[in-house]
Amino acid sequence: MHFKLLLQYDGTDFHGWQIQNELRTVQQELAAALSLIDGQPVTVHGSGRTDAGVHAEGQVASVSLRREITPEKLRAAINANVGADVRVIEASIAAEDFHARFSATGKTYVYRIVNGPVISPFWVRYAHQEGRGLDLNQMRRCADLFPGEHDWSAFSSAQTEAESRVRTINECVVSERFDERAGARMVEIYVSANGFLRYMVRSIAGTLLAAARGEISETTVKEAIDGGDRSLAGATAPACGLTLLRVRYD
Amino acid sequence: MHFKLLLQYDGTDFHGWQIQNELRTVQQELAAALSLIDGQPVTVHGSGRTDAGVHAEGQVASVSLRREITPEKLRAAINANVGADVRVIEASIAAEDFHARFSATGKTYVYRIVNGPVISPFWVRYAHQEGRGLDLNQMRRCADLFPGEHDWSAFSSAQTEAESRVRTINECVVSERFDERAGARMVEIYVSANGFLRYMVRSIAGTLLAAARGEISETTVKEAIDGGDRSLAGATAPACGLTLLRVRYD
Repeated sequence: MHFKLLLQYDGTDFHGWQIQNELRTVQQELAAALSLIDGQPVTVHGSGRTDAGVHAEGQVASVSLRREITPEKLRAAINANVGADVRVIEASIAAEDFHARFSATGKTYVYRIVNGPVISPFWVRYAHQEGRGLDLNQMRRCADLFPGEHDWSAFSSAQTEAESRVRTINECVVSERFDERAGARMVEIYVSANGFLRYMVRSIAGTLLAAARGEISETTVKEAIDGGDRSLAGATAPACGLTLLRVRYD
Repeated sequence: MHFKLLLQYDGTDFHGWQIQNELRTVQQELAAALSLIDGQPVTVHGSGRTDAGVHAEGQVASVSLRREITPEKLRAAINANVGADVRVIEASIAAEDFHARFSATGKTYVYRIVNGPVISPFWVRYAHQEGRGLDLNQMRRCADLFPGEHDWSAFSSAQTEAESRVRTINECVVSERFDERAGARMVEIYVSANGFLRYMVRSIAGTLLAAARGEISETTVKEAIDGGDRSLAGATAPACGLTLLRVRYD
């Protein structure tokens, strides 16, 4: 039977999604639970990797099992065999040709920033702290430059394995609100695209933060986007602020 | 100099507020940091105790220091010397006669319940999970019975040290919303009173949960409130769902 799994995880105590020898990763923890449940080695396909420390509110995985099991029982069985920092929120029977990665048509990430002098215990794992003043109008003007189809080399790691670095960003939106649990202003950067390169959202977030602090201009941001020069973009923002919100399928 | 401290803490890894030999508590951790800062033993007065596992978004403490220090520097110095799960959000100079406990005129707690089959990694530390169906109309009808002045013996621990068990509940309100990070319905019970007995909010929450599951009637809840019979109230709900939201001062 073929299943689609909707997953959440707190990435703090994982070395990212992808299986690595000896290290605790989300894919490894799910594969171990599923192999136990199915009595044979099970491969877990995710919609894509997330790096160490990055969270997911809506990661998607696909798995094929030998045994017959209802989605509800599968969800309960997996959840009983993984740490409390990863959870199958929903399991459903999927079409035979459904593949979490190859069937995906887009994703949305959010990068969260607590803008204040203190980072709340309730957000320290899930948001980046910025104590300096942020010009959100400037941040928004720069965010508006991102939607479109480009080679995103300036906003990626040099080690990106992707053959093509051309992706289409559909949305890059900055929201703000006073967050009670943060006791401070929460700034959220939402980025949707048909695909992402490694460090792409964290690099966009770092660039928007630099712009909001007045360190780089709109013109420089535009040049980085158009010209692909990595040195023009801002620093890569820390992993803890990043959360994979959802994966789109047609 | 006399200071008022506004505090947040994630209670998960603390054995509650109050200093206990050898155990990690919030009061002990703050007192150790302040004693280091002031070069002499410092006593930290909290607005009241919170039990092991209970959180605070707005606990208040008062302290007297020998040395001269600005509130901003004091905040930074304390935060640099305590774990990331406790934070001074705000420090301010207080009147000499300000006492976090004796000056307090009321408090508000929230009890959070994730109502769904799975508890999200983002709420597992901060909310109680209830997988069964909850009748929120029934819960609200019972919540409406709580405001007023009563002897709250039926909703407290037998070991409560308080001389009088009479307190006035000003507000007992049930809110609900779909929470994206929970991937489920979030039910919140807000209780405000001029003071609380030990386990009082958790006992009210347990009673409202039992009522919402159809296990106890409005009449029984009313009898427990009026007659003070502990056996009529619901079970004490788990600590993790409880958060001290704010302390009121005139």
